[in-house]
Parts: sequence; structure tokens; C-alpha cells
Amino acid sequence: MTVFRHILLFGVGLIGGSLSLALRKSGYTGKITGVDRNEKALGRARELGLIDEAVTSATKAVSEADLILLAAPVAQTGTILASIKPWLQETTIITDVGSTKSDVVAAAYQELGEKVGNFIPAHPIAGRELNGPDAAIDSLFSGKKLVITPLPENTGKDIEKVAMMWMQCQAIIHFLSPEDHDNVFAMVSHLPHLLSYALVDLVARHSNADLMFEYAASGFRDFTRIAGSSPEMWRDISMANKKQLLHELDSYLAELGQLRNMLASDDAAGVENIYANAQQARLNWITTIEAAEKQDRTS
Amino acid sequence: MTVFRHILLFGVGLIGGSLSLALRKSGYTGKITGVDRNEKALGRARELGLIDEAVTSATKAVSEADLILLAAPVAQTGTILASIKPWLQETTIITDVGSTKSDVVAAAYQELGEKVGNFIPAHPIAGRELNGPDAAIDSLFSGKKLVITPLPENTGKDIEKVAMMWMQCQAIIHFLSPEDHDNVFAMVSHLPHLLSYALVDLVARHSNADLMFEYAASGFRDFTRIAGSSPEMWRDISMANKKQLLHELDSYLAELGQLRNMLASDDAAGVENIYANAQQARLNWITTIEAAEKQDRTS
Repeated sequence: MTVFRHILLFGVGLIGGSLSLALRKSGYTGKITGVDRNEKALGRARELGLIDEAVTSATKAVSEADLILLAAPVAQTGTILASIKPWLQETTIITDVGSTKSDVVAAAYQELGEKVGNFIPAHPIAGRELNGPDAAIDSLFSGKKLVITPLPENTGKDIEKVAMMWMQCQAIIHFLSPEDHDNVFAMVSHLPHLLSYALVDLVARHSNADLMFEYAASGFRDFTRIAGSSPEMWRDISMANKKQLLHELDSYLAELGQLRNMLASDDAAGVENIYANAQQARLNWITTIEAAEKQDRTS
Repeated sequence: MTVFRHILLFGVGLIGGSLSLALRKSGYTGKITGVDRNEKALGRARELGLIDEAVTSATKAVSEADLILLAAPVAQTGTILASIKPWLQETTIITDVGSTKSDVVAAAYQELGEKVGNFIPAHPIAGRELNGPDAAIDSLFSGKKLVITPLPENTGKDIEKVAMMWMQCQAIIHFLSPEDHDNVFAMVSHLPHLLSYALVDLVARHSNADLMFEYAASGFRDFTRIAGSSPEMWRDISMANKKQLLHELDSYLAELGQLRNMLASDDAAGVENIYANAQQARLNWITTIEAAEKQDRTS
């Protein structure tokens, strides 16, 4: 089953490449064209068979594609939308994979104007700490959530088409408002990335850095796995969702301040209370996830 | 090869139990006696074959054992040492597995007095987020570091015996001063645990907690894996290494303050600079670890 005939990918890295592999695996027989400001990545994507065609100017492909997918760092959204607008056909659907939504939606209104209804904002909750075409895998979205944050101007039919494409990649479709999306991900994704980068940077700049890295073990490795992610991508996400991120960072700083006071005043029971509440909450969360995964496998 | 005839474990949870399994796997044929204030855990350890004998009063076993290993939460170190001192033979070696060393060493001097030379402070850099006898596995220490922080009163021969026992469990022996040990682990272990617990607690107390946990994904899961650890154990570690932990927490708060200012003032380049420094440092670290692991496998 093929919803689209011709997909144009802006960005042929981990996400764009994995979408291509997942669609091919599901039996997609249409054309996939790729464009990327990084020529090396573009050539590599062609070599790996992630795209059928690599173009450096997207003008022709924009006018021919029936789906345009933005999979470049979120800060480029406005520029890309502005550049493609003159060549869009009336029925062309545009969607994205940005980790932030309020800024992407604002850029869509600004750059697409009367054509904004063609833009279906979306975000696959899937990733790896590796980047680029070589990191693409066909299972990246399998069993993972794909959040659509629809606009009032979108038609149900267009939303359904985008949802169908992601369902072909084994993703599970969810809907949120752009604001709820950005609130939630500021806390469970953007803030942990900032915290993880901050800790590794602190260790790296420490006068005792070599000894510290020598003894860092599996706990440190897992805690800092997300600090292996693309700095450019996460700079863009941090800046794009700055308001929510600052809000949650301030809550976290208050929480650390509270723990600091407990430590300083030998309030062992207070420290244990926070640790125990966290351990129990995480256990409940993991139990729920695992039950849901089991349900998915048997349904 | 068996260095000891009779090992007495104070604490038959993850670490004590895994040591027992690893020793048995390596061919240890001596006796292993267990004592634990948790009677259920003690019975379970006996059922699982982690110990040959479960005792509730350790008096007799203390006078018979040639190695006593403390594998209970670090805050209990002083109490246990005081209780065993009257029954110690002259040649009995005592060692521990505590995640902090300065406080353990202080407790040893205080409680053992003239017998302090029998105490070899040690710390295996290995763990799981699971606890108790059922979490014990025979490979827990394989390829992992075992740090000994010797006292001036220790004899080389006794240190060698403890080292030999851990080498039988495939651990790699390292030496640090208690102070260096506590500095290093405050940063790469104790602080990440506190940060991870703090984040999960913050999410769990949020008015939007359910929605946040629903969308938390693999990045959050890895970042918070260590928040699944025993709250009591980590309360004890946090309090025991309070001075160093507060020092590193303050450095981290300063780092977050810097990032906060960069975000608030739209300094995207500053944010990227920190993220990129962290990503590069982590990549270098992982590359070094993997090279060392490869070396271990081929040597």
C-alpha cells in the first residue's frame, strides 16, 4: 500500500534515512528524492540506497512530489518552507519531524501563509545518539510514538495520509496540541539532554578529568548516552523551545536546591524520601511501559 | 585456587551474592557463611545457594572466618565493625565493598583501633539497578575495576590476598587514596545518581506527570536508569560523601546557571559550544573504553 507516489526528503540523515528504509521494507514502491545542504551526506545517502535521486536544487522535485518531509535541524524550517512555497502544487502535503512544535508551527504560518493547511506538523519519538545517513535503520520507528500536532487548517484526509505513512513504518499515532507537546518534551527530553551535556562538559573541564573518566562506569555511561547526540540539533531544539526549557530548568534548579539543603543540614530522611519517591515512580513507569509493549506484541 | 577457607558475608544482596557466585564459578571450594539483618533476604540467599550457612548471630562465624566481607549499606560499617571486633582472630582479614571510602576508613580507625591493619578498604566498580539476593549474577565483576584504598597499617601480603580473591572474580585491581577515590566518585557516580533521582521526582510531582511519563522515551529511560537504584543505599552514600558531593553539586549548579544565562540571552553559540565540548569528550571517553575492552579480550 502506497499513500504517496513521490516523497521529497529535506535532510537525509538518521530520521530521513530511517523513514526511507522503513517505507521500503513495508513495500513502498514510489520514488524518494533527497536534498541536503551537506553534499557528502547526500552522496552517501544515494550510495546506501536511502534515496533514488539526489538533488542540490529542489525546485523541480518540490513541484513533482506529493509529500515533502522536513528532516533537517528545526532552525532551518522557516528557510526551507520559504524556499519551497513558490513551487508547491495545491495538493502537495508537507510534514516534518521536528522535536519542537510551537516554533515550527509559527514558522509554517509565517512562511506558508494561505498554504499553511498543507503543512501537517509531526514528531516521531525515536532516535539514536548517532547521526547521518550511516546511522539510518529500518526499525527506528517500530513500536514508537509518532505525535501529530494538527493545525485547524489541516484536512482530516491529509492528516490521515501522513498518519498512514508512519503506520506503514510501524509507528503508533498520537495527537497533542503544539503547546502540550512542547511542555511535555521540555521535561522528558530537552531538559535531560541539557543536564547530560552539562555534566560531561563539567567533567571534561575538571582539573582531574583524566582520573574521573578513567573510573566512570556504566551508570555514567547511561546517564550521558544522550550527550552523544548532535550538538547542532540540540542547540536548535534548546533555543526553539527556550521558554518551556527555561521553565523546567528553573523547577529542576529548585529541586536541586532543596536536595542541597537537605545534604548540608544532614537531613538523611529528606534525601531518602526524594530518592524513594523517584525510584517508585520510575518502577511504576517501567512496569506500565512493559505491560503496554507486551500488549502490542500480543494484539 | 583458594586464598581463603571460610568467608563470612555481612550482607547477602546483589554484591555479596554476586561475589559468592563468581568465586564458586572460579572454583572456590571453601565455606561461605552469610549474615543479614533482613531475614527474608538471608533465607532467600540460602535457597539460591549463595551461602552455605545462614546465621543470625555472627559471633561464632567471626571467630572462624579468615575473610570477613562487609557488603551492607555503608552507614552500618561502624556498627558491624564494633560488633565483630571482640571475636576477631589475629590473622582474620576484613574488607568491604562500600561506594565511599573516607567515612569507611574513619569508622575502621574508630572501631577497630589497634586491629585496623586487618581492614583492607575496597570498592568494586560494578552494580545493577536491581537489589537483593535475586539480583546476584556470577559475571557482575568480570572486567570491572576493583579499587583498593590501602591503609598504612595494612601488610602487602593481606592486600595481595584480597586482590587475589577479586582477580578470581575477573576484576581488575586498581589503587587510589581514599580521598582521591571519594573525589572521583562524587563526580562520576554519586552526583549523577542525585541528578537522576531529582529529575524523576520532579516529573512525578508535576501536575502533568501522567502525560509526561506517557511520552518519556529511551533517552529518559537511560538517563534515569540509576534512579532505579536502592534509595537507602544511595541515601547512605550521599550522606557519607556529603562534603565532596556538595562540592561537585555546586560546580554543577554553576554550570547550569551558565547554560541558563546563555538560553535566556539567546546565546545559541554558547549553548552549542558546551554541547559540542561534551559530545566530543564523551566520544573520546567511549573510544578509550572500547579500545581498553578490546585489549582485555585479546590479552
